[in-house]
Amino acid sequence: MSETAYDRLAALGIVLDPVKVTGAAFEMAARTGNTVFVSGHIARKDGGAWVGKLGKDVGTEEGQAAARAAALDLVATLHAFLGDLGRVTRIVKVMSLVNSTEDFTEQHIVTNGASALLLDVFGERGRHARSAFGVAQLPMGACVEIEMVVEVADA
Amino acid sequence: MSETAYDRLAALGIVLDPVKVTGAAFEMAARTGNTVFVSGHIARKDGGAWVGKLGKDVGTEEGQAAARAAALDLVATLHAFLGDLGRVTRIVKVMSLVNSTEDFTEQHIVTNGASALLLDVFGERGRHARSAFGVAQLPMGACVEIEMVVEVADA
Amino acid sequence: MSETAYDRLAALGIVLDPVKVTGAAFEMAARTGNTVFVSGHIARKDGGAWVGKLGKDVGTEEGQAAARAAALDLVATLHAFLGDLGRVTRIVKVMSLVNSTEDFTEQHIVTNGASALLLDVFGERGRHARSAFGVAQLPMGACVEIEMVVEVADA
Repeated sequence: MSETAYDRLAALGIVLDPVKVTGAAFEMAARTGNTVFVSGHIARKDGGAWVGKLGKDVGTEEGQAAARAAALDLVATLHAFLGDLGRVTRIVKVMSLVNSTEDFTEQHIVTNGASALLLDVFGERGRHARSAFGVAQLPMGACVEIEMVVEVADA
Repeated sequence: MSETAYDRLAALGIVLDPVKVTGAAFEMAARTGNTVFVSGHIARKDGGAWVGKLGKDVGTEEGQAAARAAALDLVATLHAFLGDLGRVTRIVKVMSLVNSTEDFTEQHIVTNGASALLLDVFGERGRHARSAFGVAQLPMGACVEIEMVVEVADA
Repeated sequence: MSETAYDRLAALGIVLDPVKVTGAAFEMAARTGNTVFVSGHIARKDGGAWVGKLGKDVGTEEGQAAARAAALDLVATLHAFLGDLGRVTRIVKVMSLVNSTEDFTEQHIVTNGASALLLDVFGERGRHARSAFGVAQLPMGACVEIEMVVEVADA
């Protein structure tokens, strides 16, 4: 399996969006040792937040698409942060926050949209531990927010 | 204190359940360096999710029992992942998600059911940092989901 | 920038509260290698929980003040745990839980109260990755709970 993450992205027809640099009070990623903590990324659509709540105005299938979109933005952030996705040795942990009514119970299925994308892009190195759960609301009303912990090789 | 985690489990009369291997899009645990991230485990009962919401159909005491059950499954996963619980040098961090009505405020008391179990099984090495909070819903309607970060010795 | 965290705290007119030692089932912080996981701290006010829900009885501005208060308590815990804040080499990751109605969508703005405080106290070393989201409830009804991951130098 000598394919790179970039080969896989190309084969999937994916072009990573440029990462917006904001004047925010926090960083999109921070590294300690060989571990990179990537900030929670809300799902985006048409340039804004992918708004909605699962169990009310967003279905499970649309939620999966939103989770996949958030995961792609996480990959774009990693690319910008590391300079080279080839330095990723392991996606270690994913935390997925699903904007849920108090009755919606398919957070794990929604989150599979993100997990599958990470496997598609990183292959075996994309296999990760995970937590997924339903939150009361998310910044800007987004339907999904995802963060991850990544193991990287030295530059 | 030369007792092993297995001695303590036996003294507590606990038999760890076998870990179900699923075809899931994610792993039950992932390691980076000497750190293992264990995926969020929902509480189970009678072979299925331990369903319910604190503040409505599950009381604090039952919630503690569910948290303890989830912690036991986390220990079973660690045993399967490491091969030997003797390699655990420290339970570092626990995150506990309690399926809560918007009025239930005893997430910390519920979570004590998990923390106490970890101390019982691992002794001093079970002392951990922790966050506990109330979520809108959980996968399959479970009342509690818990993940943890564990420090391990080399194999 | 040879100012220490203590110089900055003094310049900000901040006196850290003494950390309460409790008989709790968990620790306020735990270390593995050069990483310290600090437990979730709820915002406090007048010696008790800073109670309320964003979107109902707590406004965004008050939420920011609560997030700042929680961050200060995290710093106080770090000081007690490390003995010397000069050992902090990086605030790596912040997770901010905002007690939210199902309509409140400014968790990121609330959390800026904590992020700004960390930058004020630690300067460049305070720059962190972050996730912020809305939870259904928090222990003791607090409006905000915050945890963090910190990189430290050897003692």
